[in-house]
Amino acid sequence: MRHSKIILSIAIMLLTISAGFIAPKKKVVFFGDSITQMGVNPGGYICRLDSLLKTKVQGNNHELIGAGIGGNKVYDLYLRMDDDVLAKNPDVVVIWVGVNDVWHKVWGTGTDADKFEVFYKAIIKKLQARNIKVILCTPAVIGEKTDFTNQMDGDLNKYSQIIRDLAKTNNLPVCDLRKVFLEYDKQNNPENKEFGILTTDKVHLTDKGNELVAEEMLKVIAGF
Amino acid sequence: MRHSKIILSIAIMLLTISAGFIAPKKKVVFFGDSITQMGVNPGGYICRLDSLLKTKVQGNNHELIGAGIGGNKVYDLYLRMDDDVLAKNPDVVVIWVGVNDVWHKVWGTGTDADKFEVFYKAIIKKLQARNIKVILCTPAVIGEKTDFTNQMDGDLNKYSQIIRDLAKTNNLPVCDLRKVFLEYDKQNNPENKEFGILTTDKVHLTDKGNELVAEEMLKVIAGF
Amino acid sequence: MRHSKIILSIAIMLLTISAGFIAPKKKVVFFGDSITQMGVNPGGYICRLDSLLKTKVQGNNHELIGAGIGGNKVYDLYLRMDDDVLAKNPDVVVIWVGVNDVWHKVWGTGTDADKFEVFYKAIIKKLQARNIKVILCTPAVIGEKTDFTNQMDGDLNKYSQIIRDLAKTNNLPVCDLRKVFLEYDKQNNPENKEFGILTTDKVHLTDKGNELVAEEMLKVIAGF
Amino acid sequence: MRHSKIILSIAIMLLTISAGFIAPKKKVVFFGDSITQMGVNPGGYICRLDSLLKTKVQGNNHELIGAGIGGNKVYDLYLRMDDDVLAKNPDVVVIWVGVNDVWHKVWGTGTDADKFEVFYKAIIKKLQARNIKVILCTPAVIGEKTDFTNQMDGDLNKYSQIIRDLAKTNNLPVCDLRKVFLEYDKQNNPENKEFGILTTDKVHLTDKGNELVAEEMLKVIAGF
Repeated sequence: MRHSKIILSIAIMLLTISAGFIAPKKKVVFFGDSITQMGVNPGGYICRLDSLLKTKVQGNNHELIGAGIGGNKVYDLYLRMDDDVLAKNPDVVVIWVGVNDVWHKVWGTGTDADKFEVFYKAIIKKLQARNIKVILCTPAVIGEKTDFTNQMDGDLNKYSQIIRDLAKTNNLPVCDLRKVFLEYDKQNNPENKEFGILTTDKVHLTDKGNELVAEEMLKVIAGF
Repeated sequence: MRHSKIILSIAIMLLTISAGFIAPKKKVVFFGDSITQMGVNPGGYICRLDSLLKTKVQGNNHELIGAGIGGNKVYDLYLRMDDDVLAKNPDVVVIWVGVNDVWHKVWGTGTDADKFEVFYKAIIKKLQARNIKVILCTPAVIGEKTDFTNQMDGDLNKYSQIIRDLAKTNNLPVCDLRKVFLEYDKQNNPENKEFGILTTDKVHLTDKGNELVAEEMLKVIAGF
Repeated sequence: MRHSKIILSIAIMLLTISAGFIAPKKKVVFFGDSITQMGVNPGGYICRLDSLLKTKVQGNNHELIGAGIGGNKVYDLYLRMDDDVLAKNPDVVVIWVGVNDVWHKVWGTGTDADKFEVFYKAIIKKLQARNIKVILCTPAVIGEKTDFTNQMDGDLNKYSQIIRDLAKTNNLPVCDLRKVFLEYDKQNNPENKEFGILTTDKVHLTDKGNELVAEEMLKVIAGF
Repeated sequence: MRHSKIILSIAIMLLTISAGFIAPKKKVVFFGDSITQMGVNPGGYICRLDSLLKTKVQGNNHELIGAGIGGNKVYDLYLRMDDDVLAKNPDVVVIWVGVNDVWHKVWGTGTDADKFEVFYKAIIKKLQARNIKVILCTPAVIGEKTDFTNQMDGDLNKYSQIIRDLAKTNNLPVCDLRKVFLEYDKQNNPENKEFGILTTDKVHLTDKGNELVAEEMLKVIAGF
């Protein structure tokens, strides 16, 4: 009896250790703006993604870390990536930026498209130099109208295309939230509302918005 | 012989007079910005429309008058309508404005959507008070890219919709150049060029652009 | 005794009537933006000016009428001058506009300097054609910092100079509130605050601001 | 005879070597935008400064290196500082940036004041971590009018003050070109011209402008 208990204990210990070896914890940093800053709150997309990974992905072992700061543009990410991303030794970094680069043009401090690309590239390069897996996301929406009258749609599409092209060139997965949000709103916003479907205010996410983002990210992150 | 000559002369005179009574000349003023200012040049849309009316419309008797000034926004039209339009006693006024109201936002001096509507309404009201027929046009394009990445497309669609709604409310014909240009570019701009199809520089018309505008306007004006 | 009382009464009545003939009521319309809209409130500059005229100016007989609407730029004044000014048959019109023409450039819908001048001129011309006395005012401030770091100061000075030049050219009195506010803040804002001295929010008036405006306007209006 | 020649040769060699030891070449990198990019051209401020250092400063031994790129803002400098500055192992870096951060607000892609400061600080910190001497410069002008009507003056003064404060906090020398240009124009631009005194186009330097910058920089750099 005593022997069997000891053997069982050892077996459990070995299993635990081997599990550790088989599936070491994967650190995933979510690097972005206010949408990501709010993503770690209860109901936020990072919280939801954590639940989804735990319930839907067998043997999952991800540690999700939020690194979002309100008002951030692509060059703000570049500036703080040493402290807020590299210092955490992540295995995977999900970059989700672009809304403020476009939006802030309205009051004079957006980002030129060519510089958006240059800084985005520099971030990718620096992460890859550390053998960190990189996942790109396109900026979702600024306004949810479905009759093509959202003021910033032209630029959002342009900057999203820059990101898709960077993903292709660098052979990186892209979570195309722009596409997903446009399609969802087309189906679910028959009244052509400016916000209230996936966003509370044209930009920040409702519960449904957070759910949709979590589901989309799951598809890409589960594989890592 | 002499008698017959006199009778012929009288007959010709009478015919001329009666022709004058049957088809009195209709004055059409084209009221707009630089696109219309250039429209009176050889090859311009007003010139072409004049030819089309003469060759294609039986018994046509229109006098086309250009009243376009570069850089004009809707409130500029309102300011100069007494001198440049009403003073000419037109039968019909074609209003084509909106590109600068949207475009000039880039450097800080565009027109708010609500004020665009208010001034547009005021112009219509003042023309109708004089029993002048009014034809509305939507602003065509600022950039001809067909992948939805033209920066100003959202606003152009919004301001075009304001014009379409004003046409509906006031029971006025609308020459929907925005729609026509988008459809033409979709068919004829497979390389996703920013300009060079219907415009020389994203805004001002090529020969093909002038031709297309003339054809579209013909459909609306021929009826008057 | 009775006779003398009756004679006195008649004399007083006649004096009252004649006073009415000698000094008929002068209608003064204040034509402007939100600052003027708030000017008719208790403590507002129009209210204060009314008190000052009644207490300080012998034989005063002015009727002050507010015609301010929030967000108005010079072209908005032009649009509504028939309904809101001319329809009231004023003797004097005080034009105070310019802050929004400059300020709204920040989000894309300010007014170009050359068009500001053209519309301002058109308003003056239309008032003068009706023999209405016109008083011009320069826009006061957008920010009260005294170390020359208010973002819009360059343009405010430029548009104020346009107004001063229009006053000179048209031989009109100008109430130079820009100058008065700059001097007051220089003396009374040693801490270089952005607002809180003459404005509550960089633009709209504190009690002291309303008092200063009323005093300055008194100097110009008392003479009419 | 032969001996004396050998001794002379040795003496010259020793002198050369000792000169090298006494005054090792000091590398000065000029880090900035188009103004600095043009500064290395004949007549440019870097060229002129080189001449001044050679003729006016005894025992001078500076090597001046231009590192200016047109259109650069403070975050562009941060992005390329490894390649364009640190890789050159400079002893001194002169930072001259700010015009585009303010100017480009006009078309929507300027830099917020708080972010201007954050990036500027980050550049200083990274240079000081390498024991590189840092010299700060304030942005000179965007427009030379002397009646306080240059559109961007408020912001230029604000951003210049940020730089002066950073210099004070970090105990760094500052070449206050904003102050120098304002004073020079006040004395030498009685006609209130927008450009043509120190700039060819409101921003880029005339011969006189380059001369003035070279003279001002000489005062600060000679000491290093």
